[in-house]
Amino acid sequence: MRIVRYTTPDNSTPAYGAVEGEGDAATVDRLEGTPFDGARRTGERTPLAEVTLLAPVEPSKVVALGRNYAEHAKELGNEVPAIPIVFLKPSTAVVGPDADVPYPALTSDLHYEGELAVVIGKRCVAVAEEDVTGVVLGYTVANDLTMRDIQKSEGQWTRGKGFDGSCPLGPWVETEIDPSALSLKSTVNGELRQDGTTADMLRDVAACVSWVSQAMTLLPGDVVLTGTPAGVGSLQRGDEIAVTIEGIGTLSTRITG
Amino acid sequence: MRIVRYTTPDNSTPAYGAVEGEGDAATVDRLEGTPFDGARRTGERTPLAEVTLLAPVEPSKVVALGRNYAEHAKELGNEVPAIPIVFLKPSTAVVGPDADVPYPALTSDLHYEGELAVVIGKRCVAVAEEDVTGVVLGYTVANDLTMRDIQKSEGQWTRGKGFDGSCPLGPWVETEIDPSALSLKSTVNGELRQDGTTADMLRDVAACVSWVSQAMTLLPGDVVLTGTPAGVGSLQRGDEIAVTIEGIGTLSTRITG
Repeated sequence: MRIVRYTTPDNSTPAYGAVEGEGDAATVDRLEGTPFDGARRTGERTPLAEVTLLAPVEPSKVVALGRNYAEHAKELGNEVPAIPIVFLKPSTAVVGPDADVPYPALTSDLHYEGELAVVIGKRCVAVAEEDVTGVVLGYTVANDLTMRDIQKSEGQWTRGKGFDGSCPLGPWVETEIDPSALSLKSTVNGELRQDGTTADMLRDVAACVSWVSQAMTLLPGDVVLTGTPAGVGSLQRGDEIAVTIEGIGTLSTRITG
Repeated sequence: MRIVRYTTPDNSTPAYGAVEGEGDAATVDRLEGTPFDGARRTGERTPLAEVTLLAPVEPSKVVALGRNYAEHAKELGNEVPAIPIVFLKPSTAVVGPDADVPYPALTSDLHYEGELAVVIGKRCVAVAEEDVTGVVLGYTVANDLTMRDIQKSEGQWTRGKGFDGSCPLGPWVETEIDPSALSLKSTVNGELRQDGTTADMLRDVAACVSWVSQAMTLLPGDVVLTGTPAGVGSLQRGDEIAVTIEGIGTLSTRITG
């Protein structure tokens, strides 16, 4: 199932929905409840083209792994980490698909980083790798927007990666996909910049989620970001970034002035 | 006003309340609404000794400044930072007064760090230092519990300082106090370990809140931690830590096995 959160011109209260069909024929079937408590389809359908998509979940926190693809670590002159690097993005960083993100005043080197995002379905802590599948609701696409200059100068990555708008998520949560070998491509203004595969993660989805959960409880809707492949780079005002993951979809973001 | 969040033996739904009186005579007057939307006193009073205090707010995030007292930076062999060090504790880290915090399985060097906590009262972003007072609800006491070994080995402080139970907060939010020169003492099993003053912060409350807010929106109930004075140290299973800030109160925490 493809789960969206959305509003319609007639109803500004966000609802969860299930996307049915493809392309111009796609519709959204409104769900009663949330995907975390057994949402039921209502049969109230709206054409996908007529809804406004929001970030597909409202995470209490986004926990991210840094340098989880060897080629990306190298391109920034870093070594592959012996211990996973974990950082947090707060809920205020999250925006939805097709968001306008203002170029932050603090930076002069804003970077995109396309990533596979794991959406947690059940409250969990200290999850063994072999049990991770059971706590995952599904997968979506993320852009780990980064003020690279601030990230480097401040040591802790909190401001450099946690600013407002730094975590576009979407367009939906795909609940039926094997995340282990999916193509991940990022384009800027239509030009290919990242062309990787989730098979190249140094630590796979199960290892990432398990590692984070050893320290902290993950709540339904929390998101774990799994790192970015090589090809990151700078953005300018007016740029359109699109991150596409095979079998999930495309997350587009526009950088405004 | 001293604002608590609490439950009673008769009502397990958390409510906000205003503490009236001192010592054995203190009572809690239940508030209708929250301190962020003009809560009103109801006159429904319960003796303070009969309520269970919770963390006085439910922050969406706790944003903390590291090494904000020169003597503390030095005691761990660190330099005073030229740029503030900012890290996040997630909502899952927060516990209330008199909490039992299990000694985490990941560490063999758990440290206490007594800190002044700023409670944000209004949604705000990019706040100038001179405007910070207007966005602050009040102040409470925090213990920035830290897995020192994990903090050092992982580079990013997320797991080392963001684990479940790593952010005891309380006992209440004091809304009428000048935070600029308050005595801060921490004891372990009654023995004095930290004896500082908030006057020794390298960056004061206004500077801390303003700095964080340049990158990220702060929401009502969010908490900004302002660093710890010298005297931090290791805890053992069974230890009782009490952090007392002049004019606010004492936050006690027990480390369990």
